[in-house]
Amino acid sequence: MCIQTGVCGGASSFTPGWTKVSCPCCASERVEPLVLVKLGQKVVPETKRWLIKLIGAPQKDGGAGLLAHPGEDATGNIIVLSAPRCTLLRATEELGLCKIYHTGEMEAFAYNDRDNFRNSDNMEVFLTSAERQYIIKYELDGLRAQKDLRIPGLPDSCTLQKRDNIWQKLGQVGVIVDTFPLHNPDKLKDLSESWYSGNQLTQPLVNEYFGSSVAFYFSFLDFYTWSLLPPAILGLFIAYFSSRFGDEIYFTDYKNICGHMLQAVFSMLWSTVVIELWKRRSSTLSYQWGTLNLAERFAEPRPGFHGDLGVNPVTGRVEPLFPEWKRDLRMALVSVPVVGLFLGLVVLGMMCFYWAEARVKWLHKDWDSMISQTFLYVPSVLHIVYTNMLATVYKTVAKSLTEYENHREESAYDNHLTGKILVFTFFNNFAVLFHIAFFKQDVPLLRKRLASLLIITQLVNQVTEVVIPFLVDRFISAPHRSEREDDPKEDKFRNQGTLPTFPGLFAEYIELLVQFGYLSLFSCVFPLTAVLLLLNNLTEIRSDAYKICKLFRKPFYPPVASMGVWKVAFEVLSFVSVVSNCWLLLLSPRLQKTSQEAGMSGSHLLVGAVMVEHVLILVKVIMAALIPDEPDWIRKKREHIEYTSMQALRQQVSQGKISKAVCGKTKYTLGLHNK
Amino acid sequence: MCIQTGVCGGASSFTPGWTKVSCPCCASERVEPLVLVKLGQKVVPETKRWLIKLIGAPQKDGGAGLLAHPGEDATGNIIVLSAPRCTLLRATEELGLCKIYHTGEMEAFAYNDRDNFRNSDNMEVFLTSAERQYIIKYELDGLRAQKDLRIPGLPDSCTLQKRDNIWQKLGQVGVIVDTFPLHNPDKLKDLSESWYSGNQLTQPLVNEYFGSSVAFYFSFLDFYTWSLLPPAILGLFIAYFSSRFGDEIYFTDYKNICGHMLQAVFSMLWSTVVIELWKRRSSTLSYQWGTLNLAERFAEPRPGFHGDLGVNPVTGRVEPLFPEWKRDLRMALVSVPVVGLFLGLVVLGMMCFYWAEARVKWLHKDWDSMISQTFLYVPSVLHIVYTNMLATVYKTVAKSLTEYENHREESAYDNHLTGKILVFTFFNNFAVLFHIAFFKQDVPLLRKRLASLLIITQLVNQVTEVVIPFLVDRFISAPHRSEREDDPKEDKFRNQGTLPTFPGLFAEYIELLVQFGYLSLFSCVFPLTAVLLLLNNLTEIRSDAYKICKLFRKPFYPPVASMGVWKVAFEVLSFVSVVSNCWLLLLSPRLQKTSQEAGMSGSHLLVGAVMVEHVLILVKVIMAALIPDEPDWIRKKREHIEYTSMQALRQQVSQGKISKAVCGKTKYTLGLHNK
Repeated sequence: MCIQTGVCGGASSFTPGWTKVSCPCCASERVEPLVLVKLGQKVVPETKRWLIKLIGAPQKDGGAGLLAHPGEDATGNIIVLSAPRCTLLRATEELGLCKIYHTGEMEAFAYNDRDNFRNSDNMEVFLTSAERQYIIKYELDGLRAQKDLRIPGLPDSCTLQKRDNIWQKLGQVGVIVDTFPLHNPDKLKDLSESWYSGNQLTQPLVNEYFGSSVAFYFSFLDFYTWSLLPPAILGLFIAYFSSRFGDEIYFTDYKNICGHMLQAVFSMLWSTVVIELWKRRSSTLSYQWGTLNLAERFAEPRPGFHGDLGVNPVTGRVEPLFPEWKRDLRMALVSVPVVGLFLGLVVLGMMCFYWAEARVKWLHKDWDSMISQTFLYVPSVLHIVYTNMLATVYKTVAKSLTEYENHREESAYDNHLTGKILVFTFFNNFAVLFHIAFFKQDVPLLRKRLASLLIITQLVNQVTEVVIPFLVDRFISAPHRSEREDDPKEDKFRNQGTLPTFPGLFAEYIELLVQFGYLSLFSCVFPLTAVLLLLNNLTEIRSDAYKICKLFRKPFYPPVASMGVWKVAFEVLSFVSVVSNCWLLLLSPRLQKTSQEAGMSGSHLLVGAVMVEHVLILVKVIMAALIPDEPDWIRKKREHIEYTSMQALRQQVSQGKISKAVCGKTKYTLGLHNK
Repeated sequence: MCIQTGVCGGASSFTPGWTKVSCPCCASERVEPLVLVKLGQKVVPETKRWLIKLIGAPQKDGGAGLLAHPGEDATGNIIVLSAPRCTLLRATEELGLCKIYHTGEMEAFAYNDRDNFRNSDNMEVFLTSAERQYIIKYELDGLRAQKDLRIPGLPDSCTLQKRDNIWQKLGQVGVIVDTFPLHNPDKLKDLSESWYSGNQLTQPLVNEYFGSSVAFYFSFLDFYTWSLLPPAILGLFIAYFSSRFGDEIYFTDYKNICGHMLQAVFSMLWSTVVIELWKRRSSTLSYQWGTLNLAERFAEPRPGFHGDLGVNPVTGRVEPLFPEWKRDLRMALVSVPVVGLFLGLVVLGMMCFYWAEARVKWLHKDWDSMISQTFLYVPSVLHIVYTNMLATVYKTVAKSLTEYENHREESAYDNHLTGKILVFTFFNNFAVLFHIAFFKQDVPLLRKRLASLLIITQLVNQVTEVVIPFLVDRFISAPHRSEREDDPKEDKFRNQGTLPTFPGLFAEYIELLVQFGYLSLFSCVFPLTAVLLLLNNLTEIRSDAYKICKLFRKPFYPPVASMGVWKVAFEVLSFVSVVSNCWLLLLSPRLQKTSQEAGMSGSHLLVGAVMVEHVLILVKVIMAALIPDEPDWIRKKREHIEYTSMQALRQQVSQGKISKAVCGKTKYTLGLHNK
C-alpha cells in the first residue's frame, strides 16, 4: 500500500491506494501527491476511513471531489491528497483564473470550453503547482455538512450541524492537526539553482512553484532594489562632492545645502515614479500569471464568514449574508477606537520612557554610584519589554477585531488584518524618529539614530530571519530527520511536517516598507541611505529565497492580482515623506543660518518651505494621476473582455437563458432599493 | 403635403409626405416630427430629394434609417425628421442605455430582447423626448459615404470620398445650415408650469424633455442650493453673535476668532461631505435615468476623429485608430505649454495693471488735474479690455488644441475642452483675489472685493443671462414671429429656428463653481457668503429654467452618466480651499495680535496653522475615501451585471459563438503586446 514513486520525481504512479475517480476523463496513470493532511494522535481508523470517503466523494454529494491516499495503512496518521482533472478545472473557473487560449492569448477559463485552452489535458502544465495545491485547500475549506451528521469514531458531542464548515470543525475537535502542501524536491532543486545560486531572478518559476502572492513579493523586491540605483548613485555623488565626512557632512556650506535639497526633491519625486511604474509592472505580471480577472467576489464566502442565510443579490445563490452597513459600523465604532487606543499606548510608552530616562539621569547625577549607573539602563529595558508585549497583545486583538468585522472575502480579511498590524508596526518603528525630528528637532541625533537603525535592523533581520532558522534546522531539527534515498515516500512527506510553518510575507513586506520609510522620510538627513539599502537588498533577495525554499514548509497561497494593501502603504508613505523632508530641511541649522545671513526671517523661511511642500505634493498628485496604472495593451485587453461580455450578455438574455436567474434576483434588489 | 397635427399635440398623423419605413413593425399611424434640418438658400430640389432619400434609406445601404418629410413641398428649405421604431431601438442598444425590464428593474437594453422591456412598443413612452431627438442626431452624424460619390445638384468639386462623414461635409459646403430638435409646445407648457411657476423641481420631467446633461445640471443646482442651508444658518448665527457690524465684525475679539475658525473648519469639512453625497445622488440619478452603463467606448468614434484605418482591438471593427501615446505626447508638448502661456498672460496682465495703477496714481499726485483724474481709470479699462480679448482668443485656441488632441469619444473631447476653458476662466476670476490674499496680504481689502464681487457678479449674471435675452426676444425677435393658432405647422417649426442657439451649460456651471470658490476659498473672511448664495440660487433655479424653456432653441444633449469634469473641479476646489482658509486665518491681524498677547511667536503660529491644514487635508482625504461613491444597492446591482456578463461570456464562448471575433482580434492584441 506504499505510494510508489513514478519516473517524474515526486509524482507517484497509479496505485490501488488512491480513492477512485468518478468520471472517465479524470482517470490517469499517475497521481501526483499534492497535499498532506496530518491527523491527531487519537483518531481511530473509522474516522479516517470516513474522512477519506468524504474527500473522495463527488461534490454534488457533498464531498470535496478530490483523491485521497491513506499513507502506509488505515491506521497511519497521514492522508495524502491529490485532485482529479475535473475538480481542478472546475475550481479554475470558479477562481476566475485566466489561462492561455488556443489563440495564444490569456482568456478567463471556462470549464465548458476547456478543450480550446492549451494544455488543458495535462494538469501539471496547465495549472501551476501552487494553483493545484491551493485548489485542494479551497475545496477542503468549502466542505459543508449537507445535513446534521455524527462523525464516526468521535463522541456524540462532536456533531456537525447543517451548513457547518467541516474542515474548520475537524480542526477544532483535533481530528486534523495540520494541512500543508508537499514540496516537489526536483522542482525545488531547479528553482533554487536558478534562483539564489545564480545571479538572476526567475519569477516565472517562483509563480509556478509558490504562487502569485510570493511571486509578487519577490518581483517587487527585485523591482524596488533596481529602482534604488538612481538615488544610490546620486547619494554617492553628493557624498563625494561634499568633501568632508563625519559630523560636518551635514550642511557644511551652501553647496552642501543645494546637494541635500536636490537629493530630497529627487527622492520625493522618485518615490512616486517608482510606485506608478510598479503598478504598471504589477498589472503586467498579473496578466501573465492569469490573475487579472479573479472572481473572488462571486465565489462562496470564506469559511469564517457568518450571517443570516439569504439570496445573494449578486450571484443569486443561497448563502450567509451580512449587511455592509453593519460591518462599517463595527469598523467605525469598535476597530478604529481600539486601534487608536493601542497607538495611544505606544505614545504613552514613549513618553514614560523619556520621563523615566530624564528621572534616572537626574538620580544618577545626584547619587553617582554603581547602582544608579545600572539604573540608567532600566528605562530602556522596560521600554523594550513594554513595546514587545504590546505588539504581541495587539496582534491577537487585531485578529479578533478583523474576525469580528466579518469580511466576506479572504482577501478583504487579509487586507484589513494586514492594514491594522501595519499601522501599528509602522507607528512602533517610527514614533521615536518622528519624536526626535518634530519635537526634539535634533537633526544630528536623528541622523545618528537613523544610521544605527539602518545598519543594526538590517543586520538583526538577516540574522533572525535566516541565520537562526538555519542553525536551528541544521543542529536541532536535522539530526532527527536523517533522510535516505530509499526511505519510503511517506516518511519523506512526514519529514516535511517537521519543518516550521512559513511565517508569512508580512515580516518581509514590513521590512521593505520600513526601509522605504527610512529612505523617503529622512532621505535628506543621510545621503548614503540608498546605497546601504541597495547592498542590503541584493543579499536580501537571496537570503529570502533560501529561507522560503529550504527552511520552512511550503506555504499555501491563493492567487492574487496585486500586492493589495502594501501598495497603498507605499503610496501613503511617499506622500508623508514630502511633509517630513520639507520639515527636516527647514530644521537644518545650517540652512537657517544661511538664510539668516541672506536676510530672511524664520517666518519667511517657513513660508517658503510650506510653499515648496505644497508644490511638491501637487506635482506628485498630478504625476500619479497622469501615469496610467496599467500599460495600454492591458487596458485594451480588459476593455475587449468587457465588450465581449456585454455582447454575450445581450445575446444570451435575448435567448432567455439567464432570465430566470435575473427574475429570481430582481425582487431582492428591488427590496433593497425600497429600503 | 402639409404635416397634419394629430390628437396628441405636436405629433402629426401619418401622411404620404413622410418617407416609407422598410420594416412592417415600424409602420405607425402617427409620425412625431422630432428634428428640423434647415437647408441653405441655394440648395436645388435635386439635392434635397437626394438628401431625403439618403436619410430614409436603411442603414445597411449606407442611409440613416430615419423618416424624412420635405415640409410644404420639394423646394422649401426645411426637412422634418423623425425615426422609426427599429432605428430607435437599435440605437438605444448601441448607446448602452438601460431601460425598465418586464421585472421592473433597469437592465441594459438589448434589441433582440426588446419584447421583454416595458413599453417597448410605444417609443414616446419608452424613450425620452431628448433621447429620441439625440438618436436622430447620432444617426445623422454617423452617416459615412460607402463609396466615392458626387452629390446631385452640387458642383463637381463637392465630391464625397469613401468613409467621408456626410453630415459634416454637407455642413461645410453649405447644403445644411442648421439641425435642431423641435420643441413640443404641450410638453413644454407642462414642464414650465410644474417647474419655474411652481415651487418644486421636477427633475424627471427635465430629464425626459431636455436629457440627462441638463437634468444633471438642474439636479446639482437643486442639491447644492439645499446643501447651502447648514453654512448659511451657521453664518447667520455667527453674524448675530458677533454683536457689532461693519468693519469691526472682522475678528474683534477672542469669541469672534473662535466663531470664524469654527466656520472655516466647518465649511472645509462641509464641502467634502457635500461632494461625496452628490456623487452618491448622481449615481442614483444615473441609474434611474438609465445612463449608468453607457457604451460610448464601444460605439463608433466621434465625427471629427481621424486616424489610420485599422481593426479596433476592443470591438474588432474596422475604424480609424489613433495611438494613445501620440495623444499624450500632443497634450504634453502642445496643449500644456500653450495653456500655461495663456495663464502666464493673465498674470502678466495683472502685473501690468498693478504697475500702471501705481504709475498713474503717482502721476495724479504729481499733476493733480482733471486729465490725470481721468487717467486714473485708464489701467482698469485697459485691463478689462485685455482680459476679455484674451478670453476670446483663448476659447478659439482651446478648441483647436482639443481638436488637435484627436479624442475618440465625444465625452472625452467635451471634458478636455471644458477642462481647458475651466482652468483659464477660474484663473481669470480668482487671480486678483489670490493676489490680494497671498501677496498683498490685505484681508480687509479682500473682504470688500469679495462682497462686491459676490453681489455684483450675481446681479450682472442674472441680467446678462435672463433679462437681456428676454428683452431681445420680446422687443426685437417676437414682432417678426407673430404666430397664430392656425398657422401651418411648417411655419411654427421655422419660427423655432429664429430663436438663438442655447449657449450650453458651461456658463451655468462656471457660475456655480465660482460661487463655490468664493464660499469655500474665502469663507472665513465673509461669514454671510452662504446666505447670499442661498438667496441667489433660489432665484437662479427659476431663471435658468425660464431661460432654457423660453428664450432659446431646444438643445441636443447626449445621455451622460455624470457631471464629468465639473465634479473633479468642485473636488479640487474643496481641497485648495483648505490651504486658502488656513492661510487667511493666519493672516488675520487680530489672530496675530491675540497670539502675540498669549506669548506665541509668529513662527509658532505658522507651524500651528500648517499643522491644522495638514490635519484637515488628511481628514478630508479619509472622509472622501470612506464615504462610498455609490449607494450600496447600486453597487450590488452593478456587480450583478458584471456577474451575469461573466457567466454569459463563459457559456457563449463555450458554444463557439464569438470565437471568431476573438480570433480575429487576437493577432492584433498580441502584436501590440510584442511591441
